[in-house]
Amino acid sequence: MELRPYRHDVKYYECDRMGITHHSNYIRFMEEARVDWMDQLGYGFDRMEAEGVVSPVVSVDCRYRHPSTFKDIIEITVAVAETTPLKIIFAYTMTVGGRTICTATSTHCFLENGRPVSLETRFPELYSQVLKLNA
Amino acid sequence: MELRPYRHDVKYYECDRMGITHHSNYIRFMEEARVDWMDQLGYGFDRMEAEGVVSPVVSVDCRYRHPSTFKDIIEITVAVAETTPLKIIFAYTMTVGGRTICTATSTHCFLENGRPVSLETRFPELYSQVLKLNA
Amino acid sequence: MELRPYRHDVKYYECDRMGITHHSNYIRFMEEARVDWMDQLGYGFDRMEAEGVVSPVVSVDCRYRHPSTFKDIIEITVAVAETTPLKIIFAYTMTVGGRTICTATSTHCFLENGRPVSLETRFPELYSQVLKLNA
Amino acid sequence: MELRPYRHDVKYYECDRMGITHHSNYIRFMEEARVDWMDQLGYGFDRMEAEGVVSPVVSVDCRYRHPSTFKDIIEITVAVAETTPLKIIFAYTMTVGGRTICTATSTHCFLENGRPVSLETRFPELYSQVLKLNA
Repeated sequence: MELRPYRHDVKYYECDRMGITHHSNYIRFMEEARVDWMDQLGYGFDRMEAEGVVSPVVSVDCRYRHPSTFKDIIEITVAVAETTPLKIIFAYTMTVGGRTICTATSTHCFLENGRPVSLETRFPELYSQVLKLNA
Repeated sequence: MELRPYRHDVKYYECDRMGITHHSNYIRFMEEARVDWMDQLGYGFDRMEAEGVVSPVVSVDCRYRHPSTFKDIIEITVAVAETTPLKIIFAYTMTVGGRTICTATSTHCFLENGRPVSLETRFPELYSQVLKLNA
Repeated sequence: MELRPYRHDVKYYECDRMGITHHSNYIRFMEEARVDWMDQLGYGFDRMEAEGVVSPVVSVDCRYRHPSTFKDIIEITVAVAETTPLKIIFAYTMTVGGRTICTATSTHCFLENGRPVSLETRFPELYSQVLKLNA
Repeated sequence: MELRPYRHDVKYYECDRMGITHHSNYIRFMEEARVDWMDQLGYGFDRMEAEGVVSPVVSVDCRYRHPSTFKDIIEITVAVAETTPLKIIFAYTMTVGGRTICTATSTHCFLENGRPVSLETRFPELYSQVLKLNA
């Protein structure tokens, strides 16, 4: 199964005094791409939330290679870098016109009623899809 | 009773490509000032929320008179422009170094379980304080 | 000439503790829609900026009629409410699934080297297009 | 020389649907703390910018240990983790009521006219202060 990359058009209000996309916004673009990725797999944030599961971000790291700016179209591919029953690490590659501008990862756990929940047990279908993508 | 003005220090990430505070941020500064104003009266947003009451924004209008920029200290005074049992209109004056840069108003209602609630009935003490400030 | 409405998909990070789109974000959606509108007319912000003209926001007013939330698709139509050589007022109607959730206006002037510039003189072609849309 | 920690009061609009500070905002808090840290050393962003030097963020990593929420006062200490003439790595520790909620680092270079510039050569006084803090 091939997932399509996510596209973010850089907004005017996302750029700073240097005229470039403020670095904090990439963390938001990662979330947008992750949401889209889960939607493509059929397990949207909203569905998870409706079932009482949230997936907080445990950590992020982000390496800014080249700036982007207003009207740039950032193409973001999401890959699963690592999966355990309790944790997923996503890897992001962001390009503008084919040039990599940013690479990043984010680590997530899953909570139900404030307690860690196993993705494998709670969403076995999603977990098996993720494992396949990770292969 | 004299309430003290709220101060917002303009952040780097709040400025845009023109080098000035992005206009959308003033709507957030209004919220900050309103939160502080209610705290000074002893009725914080958090207390209201804990009691199950939310006060959504019905409308805002904002007139930008002069730009502000990174490191400017914006002093915001909040006044009650109008009160009815179901609605409050706040008026904001924002100054930098004594010069008025922005004037604005916001209108709020109060909801409990999704239904309009009378501030006068639900929070009589707050309502009477507000009336006094409005006098 | 018929312009197509702008679409904004509400992001997770745009929603607040009440679970709804934070009211300050609508001011940003207005900017996005305005940028798209000018692009459709062939006079993007970037082109104006490249020519040394900026169009600061003089004022906004925004009336929130119904909340929106994560994953809602907001359709925004932009109309010219009023034009003078020195000023444009845009009117916005935002709908979700056909229901109007927000109506707003924004007023803009045009500056070159920090001084007001006449849209009619500086961008006569754009001005005449705007007049036609305003008719 | 002892620098005082930076304080950020969490704003209503910084919290998300989970009721907690949205994770992207911590990247902004880091910037606020860094700006304050440089101000305390007498080398504000604004002074650097006025002299034509910008210090883009090369990378960030951020580990979220506990959530924070509306009205929390986050105390942020900034330390220099590593310095070379061309690069600084800052380390941040964020606490609420004495409990560490987030640890992070950011890496910065310095650019003048778009080209890397040595902090040691360009701002020798600042560089020597930073080395001392790093000792």
